[in-house]
Parts: sequence; structure tokens; C-alpha cells
Amino acid sequence: MAVNLSAPNPAELYPIAGLRLGVTEAGIKKADRKDLTVILFDLGTSVAGVFTQNRFCAAPVQLCREHLATGDGIRALLINTGNANAGTGEEGRQRALSTCQALAGRLGISARQVLPFSTGVIMEPLPSERIVAALDAALADAREDHWLRAAEAIMTTDTLPKAFGAQISINSAPVSITGIAKGAGMIHPNMATMLGFLATDACVSPALLPQLARQLAEGSFNRITVDGDTSTNDSFMLVATNKAAHPTIDSLDSVEGKALKTALLGVAQKLAQAIVRDAEGATKFITVRVEGGNSQAECLQVAYAISHSPLVKTAFFASDPNLGRILAAVGYAGISDLDQTGIDLYLDDVHVVTRGGRHPDYREEDGQRVMQRSEITVRVLLGRGAAFDAVWTCDLSHDYVSINADYRS
Amino acid sequence: MAVNLSAPNPAELYPIAGLRLGVTEAGIKKADRKDLTVILFDLGTSVAGVFTQNRFCAAPVQLCREHLATGDGIRALLINTGNANAGTGEEGRQRALSTCQALAGRLGISARQVLPFSTGVIMEPLPSERIVAALDAALADAREDHWLRAAEAIMTTDTLPKAFGAQISINSAPVSITGIAKGAGMIHPNMATMLGFLATDACVSPALLPQLARQLAEGSFNRITVDGDTSTNDSFMLVATNKAAHPTIDSLDSVEGKALKTALLGVAQKLAQAIVRDAEGATKFITVRVEGGNSQAECLQVAYAISHSPLVKTAFFASDPNLGRILAAVGYAGISDLDQTGIDLYLDDVHVVTRGGRHPDYREEDGQRVMQRSEITVRVLLGRGAAFDAVWTCDLSHDYVSINADYRS
Repeated sequence: MAVNLSAPNPAELYPIAGLRLGVTEAGIKKADRKDLTVILFDLGTSVAGVFTQNRFCAAPVQLCREHLATGDGIRALLINTGNANAGTGEEGRQRALSTCQALAGRLGISARQVLPFSTGVIMEPLPSERIVAALDAALADAREDHWLRAAEAIMTTDTLPKAFGAQISINSAPVSITGIAKGAGMIHPNMATMLGFLATDACVSPALLPQLARQLAEGSFNRITVDGDTSTNDSFMLVATNKAAHPTIDSLDSVEGKALKTALLGVAQKLAQAIVRDAEGATKFITVRVEGGNSQAECLQVAYAISHSPLVKTAFFASDPNLGRILAAVGYAGISDLDQTGIDLYLDDVHVVTRGGRHPDYREEDGQRVMQRSEITVRVLLGRGAAFDAVWTCDLSHDYVSINADYRS
Repeated sequence: MAVNLSAPNPAELYPIAGLRLGVTEAGIKKADRKDLTVILFDLGTSVAGVFTQNRFCAAPVQLCREHLATGDGIRALLINTGNANAGTGEEGRQRALSTCQALAGRLGISARQVLPFSTGVIMEPLPSERIVAALDAALADAREDHWLRAAEAIMTTDTLPKAFGAQISINSAPVSITGIAKGAGMIHPNMATMLGFLATDACVSPALLPQLARQLAEGSFNRITVDGDTSTNDSFMLVATNKAAHPTIDSLDSVEGKALKTALLGVAQKLAQAIVRDAEGATKFITVRVEGGNSQAECLQVAYAISHSPLVKTAFFASDPNLGRILAAVGYAGISDLDQTGIDLYLDDVHVVTRGGRHPDYREEDGQRVMQRSEITVRVLLGRGAAFDAVWTCDLSHDYVSINADYRS
């Protein structure tokens, strides 16, 4: 099903010194399924996060924000599938907190040093007792080389685990990066959430980490869309265990800071794109690139209007070069002073529209040829300025409707 | 296919004194299909219009705006299906203008007194020669009682013609109202556009008519959404032939003004709702009502977020009370200071969510019972203020994907 996505390459999933991952079956929603993951950090690890902007954010997201704000060193992540613990009110907070307390008790730390993550059914009570009962098994499983197991355990309707890594050298010291992620948008009838966890043994100033996390999210997870439905639980965590043998990076403008950011961004983008490639029912991977805007913001506005249009998405599914739909989406994207006679449109290398009208050399069969590819770039030139941006998305297929219309079972 | 929509009742389609409609087959895209309509007005008729906000608006929309702005009395509307004349650049304008000129020549009026409307394929040249060649036949067909024929001739993928009427009395004088409309959103792979034409023989001050048209559109056509794709050609026209035997209405606050507006709005709402009922693949008609907002604008924002969510729409298609999806849409609607603990949610009479969490009395089977209905009201209480608004929409089904993914043929 997934578009040009393979199973992770285990050789690329580098252990991160100071970080262990443990997985077990807690029976949260179904039996015989890995659904609980702990990620444990040595003392001295720095953690930063970026969370959903959804105002109906889930209880675990609320706790993550609070626990990070206390400034106490985070020592563990606790991740469950099968239940999103969203729309669950005060009881949901208490249940999430009780799982943090139980894990903290076993580790001899404070509950504030644990961050909880949930993905699954909305509006159902979190079976926190089952999570607590399974903690010992998860802890017993914890090892530095369990990235692939963790990538599998956080899956919901993902058809493949998503995990990538990279190695670079900073001041001659080897630095490793490994990340895992799960499913885009609000995936299944009951499953919600994108989760991304990216870790490195690089030494990064704790003060710098939140800024770095935001910049990475902006360049990766915040540039993908499947159905435009922002989940209640989306979370992206950046972890630096500070074990590598190089001086601490305290600026993203330094040579070392730039090198690390570039490598981290590369892994984050692979993870984000993997989510789109494995989106529900996706048959095509589409890059929507908008150039020539007055601002990056208006380029994004146009890119999202195109990416969210059900008509554009069904046309891609059908391999139908029905490109007027793209023009229409550009037109309603919300740029009030847009001049349609300034617009050009390319589909891969095919020049479809010039100055707002059909290009004289455009032939339907050229559009048709591109539309049949599994990876397509839509390029819109606004003719207003020098800003540009891009979004990764997929098509809208019968399978999307089937998957999302299936009764929860 | 259509949800609780019947064929128009001919007895309700009142002739409007001073207005005639003629229809013919111009062979614009296919043979043997009524695809060209003229609507002719007597001298003294007032016309006002509301057009798409899409910046990629079609050539006919551009001409409509210009012709209305000249202030010359509009004497004719010229409507074709089969081609939207959008994304066609300067040539598209010239072709649309040539059809206006040809009709004006036959009627002894100026081209500026003709308004053109097109719906159909985007980015294809308008076959204006075929339209011009068919004008005589359309004019020969023009009669006061041809409303149903016109409703049929403006259809594209609509499964039923849409036409409603009303009669009221103003200062003891009988007043008639009749309107027709076609297809919501961007209907078919190649078909675009909502068109609505509403006419009355009431006497309305020409200065008042644009304001009345805007208010009617706001309360009807601007409250519906199928797929969130704003067409390049959407147009709503309000026509007053000023033939009725009552003093001219020059205020919407007068008793007569209110009575007329209420009656016109009733017909406009029936037309708008008929478009949703006959939307591509629709199996359910859904009213999304948002109350307790700080402003009408934020209520609409939330209502549209719910109405546009593919996840909410597929849940309705599946009759699945997966109501967390509605909460999630409320959360990402863009109200930055929304407090989720103030939110209540009802599905028809069933109280699903209270203060942001599942209502203690809510049972899945109650939600299930409501979801199986063909007409459902989603009611969200924001708990912030006294403002409210509502939007009409439909579900997202396999047929929507099939219809929109079919190759153009």
C-alpha cells in the first residue's frame, strides 16, 4: 500500500548512548499486540517537544507541556497505542498522571520527569491499570538497540514501521541520530495522531534544544498533510543524551550547530515523508511547491489549499490531469490581492499554465504522463515576490473512505 | 441518490411578470442536451449579484462584475453548461464578450446589458461560435412559464433540477418569487460551479437590491459546503422586475421589506439546501449549528472546520458515532483561546459531550441511533458568548471519490 516506502534498515538504526527502549503487550485495546513503549534516558539528557496546536489537546499532551515546564530533567517517555486519552476531561488527566507516577516510582524519579504519549480511540477512558500492570515487562525489555521494536510498538494503522538514522562527525567525534514516527493525520476511525521521536547522542545546550525542536518540526512534520485533520495528540520530541565526545553546541549558527541541524532535519524529513507515503489509502506522494510569493506564509497558504482540496486529491488518485482544480484552489487560498494573470503552473517538468491561462504548448497527454507517476511535484509560481515553501501530501482514494468509514472494531 | 429531495413542483414555479426564459441545445460539450439558457427582462427590471470570492474567477464572472458596475439596466442573462470558461486568460474574456455582443445585437441592446454565466470544464476554450449559433433558437423558446426547462438546462452532474417558488402579498398586492439553482461545490471532474437565480415581480428600489442580494446569499448559499472547494464560477443573481402593484420597497427594515426578504430567503434556503441534498455522493444532510460563541465569525469558523473534516464526513457516511472527530475539528478550528472544558456537544437530542468530556449518560447506542438518520443536526456549544450560526453540509462517501476520480469523458 505505502508509496515507495520500505521497511526500516536495521543497520541504519543507531543505538544512542544513554537511551534505552523497552516494549511490551499491555492489552490496551487488543490482545497480542505490542502497545506499550518506554524510552529511558540517562541523567544529563535534554528533551524538548513540539505539540499539537489543537485546542482540544489530549490529557497526555497537557501533562507533557506541564512536565517540561517544570524544568526537571526528563528521564522517561511512556507511550501507548490503542487509546488517545483525548476528550476525557479531568479523569483523563488523572489517569495519565497515575501512569507517570507508577513509572516514576519504579525508576526512583519524580512523576514530573516522565512524559506520557497516547494514540488511539478518542473519548474512551484510558485503561491506566493495564498500563501500570505492564510497566515491569516494558522496563525489563529496555535496551539501546530496540529502536525497531519501538517503531513497531507505536504503530496504529501504519502498514510499516517508520525509523531512520544518520551518523555524522562533529569536531571529529562520531555523533548518531535515530528517529521513529507513526501515522499522519487522524488515521483510523479511532486512531489519532502523529508521534515522532528523534534522538541523538550529540551534546546540545539545553537552552538551545526547544528552538532546535521547533525548527526541525517546521521543516518536516509541519510540512505534511494527509486530510487536514490536526490530531488532538500530535507530538514531536527531540532528545539529546549529550554523550558524544565533542564540545557542547550552544548556537545553531556555528559550523557544528548547522551540521547537526542539517543531519537531524534529514532524518526528521524522512520520517515525515514516510508518514505521508504510508497515509491511509495513499497511492501517490505529492510535493506541492509554491514559489514567487510575497511571504513564506502566503506560499504555505496556497500549498495547503491545494493539498487539502478533495477535488485535487481525487484527481491525483484518478491520474487525471484535471488541473483547473489546482488553479481553483490557488484562487480560494485566501490571498485577497492575488492577480490570476501572474500565475504559472508546472506538473513536474510540464508547463501547464502561463499567466493564468493554459500554456499554448500544453498537451493533455503530457499532463496525463506525469499524473501516472507515483511521485509528482506540483509547482505554482505566484509571480509576486521571492518567497517559497513546500508541503508533502498524498491523494484521496477509495481506500481512504473505506478505512475511515469502517465501523470501529 | 439525492437526500430527501424531490423533483420540483411545477405548480410552485410561478411565472414572474416581465421575465421570460428560453432554452436550447447548443452542443457545447455533448449533443442532445439542453445546455444554453437565456433569461430576458423587461425594461425597468433591477438586477444584483453576488459572485465567487475565488481570485481565479472565471471570465464570465469578471464580465458580470464589469457589466453590473456600468449601471446600465441589465436586460438578459446568458447561461451555458459544458464549459466554465475559467483559466482561459484574455481569450476567454473575448469569447465571453462575443456571446454577450451577439445576444445584445439580436435584442437591440448593449453588450453591457447582458450578463454571461458558464459552468463546466475548466481550462478549455469556450466554444463561443456554437453558443452564438444557438441564440436564435433559445430566444424563440423564451416564455414566462419556462422555469422548469431552465432549471433542467443549467444542470451539470445534478441528479435533479432545483426550483422553488413562493407567493406572498405586499400591501394586498400579490407578489411572486421563483428561483432555480445548480450544483454545489466543484461538482464533476470538469464541472464547476454553483449557480443560483432568484426572481420576483416585487418592486424594490434598485439601490436596495445589491444589499438584499448579499444578505440573501449570506443566509443561504454562503452557508453550504460540500467539499470546501470554492468554485471559480459561483454566482447568485437576484432579479426584481418591479411589476407588482405595490409601492416600491426602499428599506429592508420596513414591514414590506421584511416580508419580502423573509419570503426570498425561504426560497433561497430551499435552493441552497437542495444543492447539498443533491451533492455528489451525499447520503446524509447535516446541519452543523454552533452556539455560545463570542462572535458569529468564530461560530462559522468552527462550523466549517467540522463540515470540511474528511474524518467527520466519512464517519457520517459510515453512520459511526465517532464523535471525537468532531471535538478534534472544534479544537483545530482556529480559536486560539478556546477552553475545551467549556464545550458541549449534541447529536440531535443526544447529549454526547459535556465540559469537554464524555457525558456520563451518553451511550454509544444513542449516538448510533442518531447517526443512522438521513438528516442530522450537530450542535456544538462553545460556552463563550451568545453568538451562533449554522452551516449545511453532507457526508463523504465512496461515490464522491468515484464521481470525482472518474476520468473526464
